[in-house]
Parts: sequence; structure tokens; C-alpha cells
Amino acid sequence: MLQQTIITALQQVRKHKPLVVNITNYVVMNNTANALLAIGASPIMAHSSQEMPEMMSFSGSLVINIGTLDSVWIPRMLFAVEQANLNNKVVVLDPVGVGASQLRTDTAREIAQLAQRLIIRGNASEIIALAGEQAQSKGVDSLDSSDTALGAARYLLETYQANVVISGATDYVVTNEHTVALKNGHEMMPFVTGMGCTLSALTGAFAAVGEETGLAAAAVLGVVGEIAAEQSTGPGSLQVNLLDQLYQIDQENLLQRLKLQQV
Amino acid sequence: MLQQTIITALQQVRKHKPLVVNITNYVVMNNTANALLAIGASPIMAHSSQEMPEMMSFSGSLVINIGTLDSVWIPRMLFAVEQANLNNKVVVLDPVGVGASQLRTDTAREIAQLAQRLIIRGNASEIIALAGEQAQSKGVDSLDSSDTALGAARYLLETYQANVVISGATDYVVTNEHTVALKNGHEMMPFVTGMGCTLSALTGAFAAVGEETGLAAAAVLGVVGEIAAEQSTGPGSLQVNLLDQLYQIDQENLLQRLKLQQV
Amino acid sequence: MLQQTIITALQQVRKHKPLVVNITNYVVMNNTANALLAIGASPIMAHSSQEMPEMMSFSGSLVINIGTLDSVWIPRMLFAVEQANLNNKVVVLDPVGVGASQLRTDTAREIAQLAQRLIIRGNASEIIALAGEQAQSKGVDSLDSSDTALGAARYLLETYQANVVISGATDYVVTNEHTVALKNGHEMMPFVTGMGCTLSALTGAFAAVGEETGLAAAAVLGVVGEIAAEQSTGPGSLQVNLLDQLYQIDQENLLQRLKLQQV
Repeated sequence: MLQQTIITALQQVRKHKPLVVNITNYVVMNNTANALLAIGASPIMAHSSQEMPEMMSFSGSLVINIGTLDSVWIPRMLFAVEQANLNNKVVVLDPVGVGASQLRTDTAREIAQLAQRLIIRGNASEIIALAGEQAQSKGVDSLDSSDTALGAARYLLETYQANVVISGATDYVVTNEHTVALKNGHEMMPFVTGMGCTLSALTGAFAAVGEETGLAAAAVLGVVGEIAAEQSTGPGSLQVNLLDQLYQIDQENLLQRLKLQQV
Repeated sequence: MLQQTIITALQQVRKHKPLVVNITNYVVMNNTANALLAIGASPIMAHSSQEMPEMMSFSGSLVINIGTLDSVWIPRMLFAVEQANLNNKVVVLDPVGVGASQLRTDTAREIAQLAQRLIIRGNASEIIALAGEQAQSKGVDSLDSSDTALGAARYLLETYQANVVISGATDYVVTNEHTVALKNGHEMMPFVTGMGCTLSALTGAFAAVGEETGLAAAAVLGVVGEIAAEQSTGPGSLQVNLLDQLYQIDQENLLQRLKLQQV
Repeated sequence: MLQQTIITALQQVRKHKPLVVNITNYVVMNNTANALLAIGASPIMAHSSQEMPEMMSFSGSLVINIGTLDSVWIPRMLFAVEQANLNNKVVVLDPVGVGASQLRTDTAREIAQLAQRLIIRGNASEIIALAGEQAQSKGVDSLDSSDTALGAARYLLETYQANVVISGATDYVVTNEHTVALKNGHEMMPFVTGMGCTLSALTGAFAAVGEETGLAAAAVLGVVGEIAAEQSTGPGSLQVNLLDQLYQIDQENLLQRLKLQQV
């Protein structure tokens, strides 16, 4: 049944080409726009508050990534979340580097508090830091294995009524209905910057067609990253092959590779 | 004769390595800088008004792309256009997402009004929206086929004394002297973000050596994109192969592939 | 002995995965983050003064690149250098386009003056312009061969107590102890944007593990770029192969290729 949810969501994205508004960090804008195009969605990279009401009125979802936040961009992020709320659109929050600075922690929590329909996608360190437990975040990369963050994810689910995706060697999707473990992916993936940001962007695409748990995005990116990494000699070719595979992935290959279990 | 114009322009770019100042969007800065380098030009990505008078004094042209505009960057764009005017340099305007928000429409028109030597390069939706006719822009991707925008292009030509390039499955170059249709390219190209932005950047390079219609850039990118796509398994490898082919394209391959006709 | 310094530094980077804070230009953020990951370091791309004290307290070094500077970012750069000083961390300055505008020249000199432990990495035009000698900088690309900048580099060494790396067909590393010439690399490398920026970022990674001359970074990137270019059909594939080779390079291949001599 979860498999069918994933397949249906992929079909829906390719059929409806949903618009996804992204306020994301400077580092990954190109990658996440390309990932959204490759999977069949339609990215809008826009941040000005002067146009956000219009953008959110016809967009399918909003992705907020705080990777290169500052005092100029934070109000834009908050305003965009308000506009998403007004239009009853899902917000995907990527709390990049939460725990590495108070600014990031405060901002991520403010966004999480504000968003009415919320999916949070982070690595284990970020999920733990966002929940407020002890976790020394080392920059924007994760120090913790993802299963150590399950308690924090459940705390976030309860506190913010948010579905939570913990990405790592194993990805976890934590909702009120279930906790799902996904064991696809490849050890080379953390050597490409913005792989988590790409997962958050794809989560926005699937949310825009009604798959609001983050499951489909985690399943697709895990399988596609695994295929791409097997074809690659390093992180440069991995990034290229990942986009090619997002474009090519079909139902059969996706299901054949998928390592999914409820926990 | 148009073929010869294109070939000569390519030779001139590679010979003179013209400087092209770009104020462009965050998403594509890397791609457009790399495309300019690959074709033989010399990109300057600069936006500060504090240095723009100097930059425009020795640059060959100015490319303005409003893809990630906001209240901080719009005055910089306008100031840069004024500096281009003072130095009698061509401005290439890429009105990304015009029609998707009032801010984009107003800004694009203000730039078009201000620039004294202007080339406008957009997809059909953008050209139609800029001209003010009815066209629902869906984000930054085009909903309309390019031939539907020919009337709008002629309106822009008359209103702003601007040469106009409409990009799409068929590209059109609209000037007072002629309307040219270019039928190169590949259906995979819209799956790479910033392909239109790359065309606008290349248009700036050719304008800097005196080819001010947009024809040479559209011809080169159409042929190069076609060759690159045939070598690619998806949009990731297409982006890589495109840069390689911009670097490699020679006169013979360009002419052999070129599908050009006056309409 | 210099060879051993390089090898040891590479081992240290891969062992300790040092955090490197980067305030760099919009064009290359993705490339430099990926290069740092590929070599084994851990990039933080952050610029907000609100979080910089925390970031510099646990980071290993700071890389400041002025490629897309403006009045908003310059104070952030200066503040970050102050924080690096407070934490006794090395600052790597990449004075992109110095000489092309007064703003760039003034800013680069202010940063150089402020930083207490400094490495300067630029091309010949930039090193000459920073030192104040006559050199017309043509945009951000170098017009001068690197050996013409040796005098300027020695002036910068004396004036700012900074180690200096001049990159070009031959790279020079200029310190109080020695001047080293490195003759690796490939003529295709200048056709990829941000190759110098990547060298500056890698310089930060090696500085964070105690190799504070810029030698190891120049050696590694020169050899890796050479290998990558030999595998490439143009600048697109060069950029991809470069990341793969940074990830793969081992001690044996590095030493076998290395063309290093004291001058």
C-alpha cells in the first residue's frame, strides 16, 4: 500500500507538473531547480515579498530552506509561510544547520510554529537540535545516525503537527499513522552538497499533488541516488547522474529497488 | 547571408573575448558564466552600483535577468542600464517570469523603457505578457508555443525599438529587417534550468562584438543544445555536454545542422 | 620535504574533515562547497553577522571571496574577519577582480589589512593590482602570466605578513621561507568559472589542518585539474571530472604527477 502511494504520487507529479515555490539557499538553488524539473515538476525560485502573495496563490507548495539565512531573508521566509497558510498550501521546512547557531535554531522554530500544514526534512543532528535535545551540530553535516533522532522526530510531530523526514544512511518518515524506514541510497551521496536540500525540494513537489508525508520523495531520491552512485566515479558524476536518473526513473525500477519497511 | 553573419559573429567572439556584465538570477549564475567562458567570451558577474560605472565603461554589453528580483536588486538593475546607456552599450533583457507577478511585469517594462540599445529574449509566455496581451504565465516556464508570440514580439519591437528573440521549440528572431525562424534544439532542453538565461547571456556576448539581433546566439545554442542532447541520457548530462559543445562547436558543424528560414 | 608536507596535509584533511566557513560569491558557491566535500573537508557557507561569532568559534578557517561584493556583504566580510582574528583562525582572501573597480581594490586591501593570519590567493592581474602596481585587470580573468606578479607577491608578503599564492599556467607559492613554482594544471581550466575560487576554498581546508602556505591546495588542484582535463572533452566535463578526481586522488598519483620546484 505504501508502495502504491509512492507510485501514484510519482505519476501525479509527472502528469500535473506542480509549481513549487522555493526560498532556498544560494548554494543549492541550481541543483534543486534542476531536480524539480527532472522529476517533472515546475520550480519557481522567488523570494520577494512583493510578489509572494501572487506566487503562493497559484503554486502547489512552498519549500523553505534556511541554509544561507540572514536578517534580510528571514522576514521574507516568514512572510512566504504566512502566504502559504492563507492559501492552505503545504510548507516544507529544511532547517539546514539548526543547532550550529542560535539564529538558525530560533528561525527554524519560528517557521515551524507558523506553518499550518508542515513537513520537516532534516538530518539526524538537525532534527535533534530542532527538538531541543542535546546534539552538537557539526556545521551542516550530520554527526548522528538517523535512528537516534526518532524520538526527536516524534516530539516535532506532536509539537508542530508536522510530518517529519529524517535523512541519513536510513531515512525515516514519521507521521501519526506510521514510521517508515527506507534503506536505499549510497555512501557517496553525502559528498555532494545539497542532497538533503534536493530531498526537501522533491518533498514539496509531491506535497503539491497530495502526498504530504515526505515518503514518496525519500523513496524516489533514495533509489535514484543509489542507481546514480553505482554509475559514478565520484561526487561530480553522481550529481550529473542523479538528475539523469530522476528524469528516467520508472515505476518498475523504483519498486524493484525500494527497501521500505514499517518500524 | 544570415549564415555568414552567424559564423562571423562566432569568430569575433572567440577572437575578441568580449567582456559581458551580467546581473542575473542566483539560480543560473554559474551556468551562464560557464556558457560565456565556453563560447570564448569573458563573463563579469557584478551587481553593485558602487562599481557599475567602471564595469560598464570597459564591458562590451550588459545582460539583465530578473529571475530572482527583489527590492534590493531592482534599483541595481536600473542603475546598470543607465550606465550602459551612458556608454552606448547594448542591454539584453531577460524578463524571466513576466506575467507571473505584477512586480516582474512592471520591472521588465521599466527596464525595456529605459534601455537605449535593447534586445529582449524571452519565451512565448513572457513575450506575450511583456507586450500586455492575455497570457497566463505558469511560473517561469512557457505555456505557449513560440509562434503565438510573434505579434507580441512585433509590438515590443515597435514600442521599445528592441530586437526580440522568442525561444521555444522554434526560436524566432524579430527585427525591423526580418523575422527568422530557427528550428534547432531538442525537447530535453526545457528540463535543464536556465537554458533561456544561457541564451540571453550568449546574446550579450554576440552583441558585444556587433551582432545585435540575437540571431547568432539563438543559432549557436540551438545547434549546440541539439548535439548535446543527442549525447545525453537526461538533463544532468545535457547541461555538461552543452558546455563541452559550446567549447567545441566549429563553423562546419554549425552550418551543417542549422535549420534557419526567413518567415 | 615539500612533497611530504603536501601528502601529510592531504591525509590530515581527510582524517579531520575540517570545517571551513566560506563567504564567497554567488557564482561559485556550489562548486566550492562541492570541492571541499570531495577533498574530505566540511564546508559551511554562511554570511550572517548574527551567527558568525558562533561559526568562527568552531570552524577551522575562513575563506573570503569578493567576487560578487556589494555594500551589504562587505560589512559581513569584515565582521567575519574580526571573528576569525578573535579565534586565531587563518583567513584566506580571494581578491576576485581586484583592479577592475575601486570598490574591489579598497575592499580587498581593507580585508588584507585586518586579517591577522592571512593567505592571499589570486591570479597575476589580481596580485599585481592588490599590490598597487600598474596592471589593467580585464574583468575577473588574468591578463598577465603569473611570473610577472612575483614582485607584487613579495610586496604583499611583506606588507600584510601574508603567504601568497599566484595561480596561472604556473602557480607560485610565496612565503618568507621559500618561493615554490608548481607547473601542473591544464590550459582548459580557465574555461571553467571559479577554478581560482576553488583553489582558495581548498587553501582554507588545508590551512584548517595547519598547512598555512597554500602549497598543498595548489599542488592538489593542479594535479587533479590536469588529470580531470585529460579525461574531458570540454569545460562541462572538466568540472565534473575535477570533483571526481578530488575525491579519488591518492598519494601515489599526486606525487607521480607533481611538478614542483623552488625558485
